[in-house]
Amino acid sequence: MCESNVYILDANGERSLIMESVDKIVPGEKDVYLENIFGERKTVKGHIKEMALVDHSIILAK
Amino acid sequence: MCESNVYILDANGERSLIMESVDKIVPGEKDVYLENIFGERKTVKGHIKEMALVDHSIILAK
Repeated sequence: MCESNVYILDANGERSLIMESVDKIVPGEKDVYLENIFGERKTVKGHIKEMALVDHSIILAK
Repeated sequence: MCESNVYILDANGERSLIMESVDKIVPGEKDVYLENIFGERKTVKGHIKEMALVDHSIILAK
């Protein structure tokens, strides 16, 4: 499966996991909607900073 | 491998392929930087509309 883990960067540049196994990502005006393969859904304030799909990694920042 | 294909939506809602096998995506102010597993790089005007990673599909819009 090709889902990714989604992390958010804190003020110190450390990343913390928001959601595992994310399939769908829809960026909004000031937030990002996430949905994983288990059907869990979450909307997180911030924007996409970078994605490295082969590493299964999506980084959000506020 | 878990790279995705990146498409852009035209005015009629039709999607056309921009780049295959994309690994890295970095959204900018008004554009999106793409890099695929072959080392090809491209910067495209627009923003990320939605992503469905299990379908290997990333949709950009202008």
